Amino acid sequence: MLDSIRIVLIGTSHPGNLGGTARAMKNMGLGDLALVAPRSEHRSADAISRASGADTILAAAQRVETLEEAVADCSLVVGASARSRTLPWPMLTPRQLGERLPGELAGDGTRVALVFGREDSGLTNAELQRCHAHVHIPSNPEFSSLNLATAVQVLAYECRLAWLAAEHGEAPEVTEQEQPFGVAWDNPPASHADLERFFEHLERVLIDVDFHDPAKPRHLMARLRRLYLRARPDQMEVNILRGMLSAVEKRCSEPPRG
Amino acid sequence: MLDSIRIVLIGTSHPGNLGGTARAMKNMGLGDLALVAPRSEHRSADAISRASGADTILAAAQRVETLEEAVADCSLVVGASARSRTLPWPMLTPRQLGERLPGELAGDGTRVALVFGREDSGLTNAELQRCHAHVHIPSNPEFSSLNLATAVQVLAYECRLAWLAAEHGEAPEVTEQEQPFGVAWDNPPASHADLERFFEHLERVLIDVDFHDPAKPRHLMARLRRLYLRARPDQMEVNILRGMLSAVEKRCSEPPRG
Repeated sequence: MLDSIRIVLIGTSHPGNLGGTARAMKNMGLGDLALVAPRSEHRSADAISRASGADTILAAAQRVETLEEAVADCSLVVGASARSRTLPWPMLTPRQLGERLPGELAGDGTRVALVFGREDSGLTNAELQRCHAHVHIPSNPEFSSLNLATAVQVLAYECRLAWLAAEHGEAPEVTEQEQPFGVAWDNPPASHADLERFFEHLERVLIDVDFHDPAKPRHLMARLRRLYLRARPDQMEVNILRGMLSAVEKRCSEPPRG
Repeated sequence: MLDSIRIVLIGTSHPGNLGGTARAMKNMGLGDLALVAPRSEHRSADAISRASGADTILAAAQRVETLEEAVADCSLVVGASARSRTLPWPMLTPRQLGERLPGELAGDGTRVALVFGREDSGLTNAELQRCHAHVHIPSNPEFSSLNLATAVQVLAYECRLAWLAAEHGEAPEVTEQEQPFGVAWDNPPASHADLERFFEHLERVLIDVDFHDPAKPRHLMARLRRLYLRARPDQMEVNILRGMLSAVEKRCSEPPRG
C-alpha cells in the first residue's frame, strides 16, 4: 500500500525542504516522489544534507513540468490546502485520508497522489481544482502555515498508521498494545498469593519499625494496597520488595552502626 | 489543555531544529518550551529563520541545566524513544498519548512534559528512567530516526487532535472514566520533584540496610523506579512512603529489641 502513494511537490524553492521531505517519506516507508517545476535543486548539498540518508529518494524522484504529468496515473489526487476557499471542495482530515487509503489502493496498479504547493503561496486554485479532495492539517488559526517537509511528515504518518492498521488489524502494533503496559514485558505478573504474602510481610515490618499501629490503622494498609496493586507488580518486582523487607528486618536485629 | 503541555528538548545541537520545533509548536497551539543544556543558541539567526514567525516561543523558552529542573512541576513525564530497551518500560503510541491528555490535565495546575533527546544519541537510559512512560512514533525499521522538529510536530499534532476532540465533543467529554485511574481521585498526583526525593531517600535506606550496592547496582533502582512510576503515586502516598523510610532509619539507629 505504501508503495502506491506518491508525494508531489510543486514549485519547491528551498532545497532543505526537498531533503526534509525525502527523510520524512523514508521514515514513514514511502518512496515515490515527484517534483513539479521545482525552483531549487534536489541534488544540491543542502537537500542531501537535510535528507540525512534518504537521498536515494531524491535521486529517484521524477522531475516534471506540470501537475498533469505528475498525477496522470493516479486514481485519487488529494491536495494539501488551507481550509477556506471561495469554492467549497470535498475536504478530508489527515485521519480520514488515511482511513480511505486501504480501499482506494485495493485495486491492482491504483495510485494515490498527495500534492503539496509552494512554500510561499501553496497550491493555485487551478491546481486545487485538479484534486478529487483537499486535506487540511488542523492548526492554530493565528499561525496555520506548516513547514513543507513537516506537513508531508504529518500526512505520511497518517498513511503509515492506516497501513499498520490494515496490515495488523484494527490497532497498530496490536500485539504490543495488548500487553498491560503497551510493551512486551520481561517478567510474568505476580500471583494474588505472592502479593498477599508481600502485604503481610510489609505490615509486620511497618509494625516492627513503629510506623503502623494495628489499633489505629487509619487506612494505612488500604492505601499501600491501592498503590502497589495499581502498579500490577511482576514476579521479580515482588521478590525485590520482599528482599527489601527482609534486609530491613536483618538490619534491625543488629546493633546500631557508627 | 494545550497550555499545560511542555516540550522539553535535551542537548539540541542544531539551531535549525530549535526554530523548527518552535514553529511546529505554534502551528499546533503549544507555547511552553524548555531547553536542557542546549548545544546551540536558540536566539541565533538560523533558529529564528527556521521558526519563521514563532520566535516568540524561542524568546520565552526556559533554559535550564538539568532534566530535573525542566520537569520538576510536571505530574506526567513522557519520553520520546526508540522501541527496544534492555529494561521494558510502559509504552504509548502517539495516539494513545493524545487520548490520555484530557484526563491527565483535568486537574488544576497539572502539567505534562514531552521530552526529546539529542539529534545524534536521543535520551540516555538515566533520562528515560525518569519518565512515567515512553512514546514511540511508528516508523520504517530500516530508517527510523526522525528529524527532531519533525518528531515534535507529530506528537504536537496528536496533542492538538486530542484537544479538538475534547473541546468540540468530537470524542466524549472528559468523564470520571477518563481520569488516570478511571475515577475521580482523592489526592493530587505527586510532582516529579517529590518522586525524585523519594527515590533518593529509598536508595540511601537500601544502602544502609545492605540491600543495595551502588558498585553492583544490577538495575535495582531502575526496576524500583519503573514499579513506582507506573503506579503514578499521589502526594499522600509519597508522604507515606517517605514516612516508612524515616521510620526504618530511626529504628536502625536504636539497639535491637527482644
